[in-house]
Amino acid sequence: MTNILFIMCDQLRHDYLSCGGHPHLKTPNIDALAARGVRFDRAYVQSPVCGPSRMSYYTGRYVASHGAIWNFVPLRVGERTMGDYLRPLGLRTALVGKTHMAADEATMALYGIAKDSVEGVHLAECGFEPYDRDDGIYPPGFTEKGKKTGYYRYLRDKGYDTDNPWHDFANAAERQGGGTASGWYLANAPLAVRLPAEETETPYMTRRAMDFMAEAGDRPWCLHLSYIKPHWPLMAPAPYNAMYGPEHVVPAVRDGAEKQAPHPVYAEFQSHPESLNFSQDKVRETAIPTYMGLVKQIDDSLGELFAFMEEKGLMQDTMIVFCSDHGDYLGDHWLGEKELFHECAVRVPMIVVDPSPEADGARGSVSHALVEAVDLLPTFIEFAGGTPPDHVLEGRSLLPLLRGPAGRVPAGWRDMAVSEFDYSFRRFARETLGRDVDECGTTMLRTERWKYVYCDGFRPMLFDLAADPDELNDLGGDPDHGPVCASFQARLFLWMRQRRRHVTISRADIAAWTDKAMGYGIRIGFWSEDETVRGRPDETSTP
Amino acid sequence: MTNILFIMCDQLRHDYLSCGGHPHLKTPNIDALAARGVRFDRAYVQSPVCGPSRMSYYTGRYVASHGAIWNFVPLRVGERTMGDYLRPLGLRTALVGKTHMAADEATMALYGIAKDSVEGVHLAECGFEPYDRDDGIYPPGFTEKGKKTGYYRYLRDKGYDTDNPWHDFANAAERQGGGTASGWYLANAPLAVRLPAEETETPYMTRRAMDFMAEAGDRPWCLHLSYIKPHWPLMAPAPYNAMYGPEHVVPAVRDGAEKQAPHPVYAEFQSHPESLNFSQDKVRETAIPTYMGLVKQIDDSLGELFAFMEEKGLMQDTMIVFCSDHGDYLGDHWLGEKELFHECAVRVPMIVVDPSPEADGARGSVSHALVEAVDLLPTFIEFAGGTPPDHVLEGRSLLPLLRGPAGRVPAGWRDMAVSEFDYSFRRFARETLGRDVDECGTTMLRTERWKYVYCDGFRPMLFDLAADPDELNDLGGDPDHGPVCASFQARLFLWMRQRRRHVTISRADIAAWTDKAMGYGIRIGFWSEDETVRGRPDETSTP
Repeated sequence: MTNILFIMCDQLRHDYLSCGGHPHLKTPNIDALAARGVRFDRAYVQSPVCGPSRMSYYTGRYVASHGAIWNFVPLRVGERTMGDYLRPLGLRTALVGKTHMAADEATMALYGIAKDSVEGVHLAECGFEPYDRDDGIYPPGFTEKGKKTGYYRYLRDKGYDTDNPWHDFANAAERQGGGTASGWYLANAPLAVRLPAEETETPYMTRRAMDFMAEAGDRPWCLHLSYIKPHWPLMAPAPYNAMYGPEHVVPAVRDGAEKQAPHPVYAEFQSHPESLNFSQDKVRETAIPTYMGLVKQIDDSLGELFAFMEEKGLMQDTMIVFCSDHGDYLGDHWLGEKELFHECAVRVPMIVVDPSPEADGARGSVSHALVEAVDLLPTFIEFAGGTPPDHVLEGRSLLPLLRGPAGRVPAGWRDMAVSEFDYSFRRFARETLGRDVDECGTTMLRTERWKYVYCDGFRPMLFDLAADPDELNDLGGDPDHGPVCASFQARLFLWMRQRRRHVTISRADIAAWTDKAMGYGIRIGFWSEDETVRGRPDETSTP
Repeated sequence: MTNILFIMCDQLRHDYLSCGGHPHLKTPNIDALAARGVRFDRAYVQSPVCGPSRMSYYTGRYVASHGAIWNFVPLRVGERTMGDYLRPLGLRTALVGKTHMAADEATMALYGIAKDSVEGVHLAECGFEPYDRDDGIYPPGFTEKGKKTGYYRYLRDKGYDTDNPWHDFANAAERQGGGTASGWYLANAPLAVRLPAEETETPYMTRRAMDFMAEAGDRPWCLHLSYIKPHWPLMAPAPYNAMYGPEHVVPAVRDGAEKQAPHPVYAEFQSHPESLNFSQDKVRETAIPTYMGLVKQIDDSLGELFAFMEEKGLMQDTMIVFCSDHGDYLGDHWLGEKELFHECAVRVPMIVVDPSPEADGARGSVSHALVEAVDLLPTFIEFAGGTPPDHVLEGRSLLPLLRGPAGRVPAGWRDMAVSEFDYSFRRFARETLGRDVDECGTTMLRTERWKYVYCDGFRPMLFDLAADPDELNDLGGDPDHGPVCASFQARLFLWMRQRRRHVTISRADIAAWTDKAMGYGIRIGFWSEDETVRGRPDETSTP
């Protein structure tokens, strides 16, 4: 049996776990996972925003390759996803929670792929069997979408019978004096949502994961357990809403210098409401304790899940991954939300437990290797006994790091992590910066020493992570750092040349071609039959 | 009625037509086409080899985008093709002849797309209704494939009943004294194939085109009439085999200097049998007259087709394109075949007749605008009344050039043509040059003045087309031309950033997103309801 439990949180910072260094937030169950496996403390997502990050996780390919450049961009038919690789290896591949997948319905219709066929469902659900698909965010305009979820039916069956119980009960509180205090507004963050904790989203999803595991029987599985928290709305049930306070809020990493002549794209994000708000201590002290409470609730819930798995004897056969789709600024660098490339946004928690005996030597260790989200899919494929197709997948299996001596980085491991972000969806792109839709790309290259961010049409951003680990001093406009920037632009060029484009033919088949062609009897440019006797066609045939 | 007749030859040089400047080869019917339309004398294919060039023609996208990097590489499911765009505009889109399409069968199977469904057939046939699909080359290993063609059945029904009548009768001759002289061997080029001319491939395909047009009735159509000639085997029927002789062979464009320290990739191609052979005058004088005869036969056959179309009244409604998938070295630059980027290989004939009255002003003119194969698909879409989707298609409609004043190049027209070639399939890549499969890319950038060829892992090639229009002097290794090369590499970088990747969402939909999001009620990072009253979410909300 080889199972894979692929746990993802949404918007969870790498440093909001006790094993990730948080001084106050205790996450013993996630810490225990790290103690059983390897914690990668240099893990990066391929885009610091939900949709494209997840599409990279699920395809094992960079955004430049899969093309789903931002949220709500359908993943094109033809991009293979996790289930497409794992099902043939015998793993039932299912989903509980969020993927942010948007189906390429136009192409499915063009090809006559029925939405209710097995293939159609898999295509629409990013390769997963949708055991309980739930993207977890239901503003008024998504109310009808929310009604299709299992969580909606669960709440309705419990008597929470409004049009949008996700909002009204799980993400809103009673206002003092009556009425609803919505979780959409940060001022309301300290209030307890109307539901008891066990009825909120996180425990619900955990129970659904348990249902799946109980039901799966002897057949190997890969379960993507994808929590929406601690993504906004920031509101938690009792006691989590009150578990932390201003005294537990880690000071913001920011400096006035960052507001002096900031990079134009950075400047725009600084002006957004979430940035202006999270730059205020009052807002941080109000909202972050709730963020912490939501993380704590996840840790508690995972404790129950792991206990359940122990009881069922699943731990010895199951690879477990714990990660996030991106981080959260929470006021660092005068920003809120995500989408730029500071560590707090683009670096994520990444814990991998490999149950195999070969992994015993590295258990409980921390790896500083540069790891990317696209590494998970080849890891899963190898773990399940397959061979990752390296003409399609752009990451690398982590098994050599999991099964080697603790902390060892294999020869030839990457020295640079890459992430991409496109701000074309933002109105400021056109109205303030005057950029065309296809001129809003940014690409981060992160080595041990440097973080370089190429920005279409602008100077780059550059941080010296040795001298300035807090990334407060953007050297991208400094002429003295011109050569460093130029060398990174050159590396970006080479990286772009190396994208995996010939997805329909393997490297091995390419290498084997000439012999095959000769076997077919293709004879190009020969004067007479005598020449074919003399030698192979693409060798020098002069005597 | 708006019909499109999209004629393609295979391996036809731009200068092997009388309107293209050939001093001896008379092609009055193709010339007449040029007199009715516009001849583009700076037209470039997106790869100087059959498969990827055609995939670019049919998808309207560069090789870097569609990924079918060489012959026999399946075009990935999800890449839309000509028929996908034209059918919704009411045009029946069909094929007579060659596409070199390889179906992405693995993905079709994954998605449950039945091979015999309408969608499955279109997918397997690159978007065309396969009225008579025939890739025209049947070495011994493709004999079974050949038996599935209409031409095979035609020859068999005429009594040419061998396993491979395409070879034995259409591409082989009687040897003096008995036996078969195969068209595979250049020494045999002057011999007449066993078939009378009207039974050879070119007239057969033309008659099939006429069948299609007669049958199509009132419904608008796009017909891709795709001749295999003058691609090898180089053997023609009487009288075409004897119509030309050594006195008609234009001297080779080559210089001994090209053999002094040639670029490593160029050097490898110089050593191939076809290159060594075509570098010999004897071989050129034997084979090229046959090549000319095959072109002449095409011209005669098109004369019949155009006469048929006149008679049927089709000329006034039908856009006609005449082009080629690439050229042929024929000994120029000490090379045979194609695959590198000298003009004789990468530049192609391109004649477009727009029947609309608006095109009257430019009829009979020659345009020097830089045109690319990817321009045809948006031209067809616009001609048929549609709007080319510019988030997918990478070329530009030629209608402004066809319908503007003669010779005018619209403002903002490209100043640089791009073509790509990958030699990874060649054994020399690994055995001589020691290149990994994914390090064999080359990209040509061609402006008015320069031809620059970037080569993964090597110095570039560079030709000063003003000083050296014959491309005999590669300046790519000359330090004095370092700055020119650097500026082109920078342009290549920008070109790579601009590939059309977000194929599932239009530029307009991206630009409209923020308003849509607000309409859904998505509120990110607001302190209280009061803020949503104050302004739009991604405007500065400080007072």
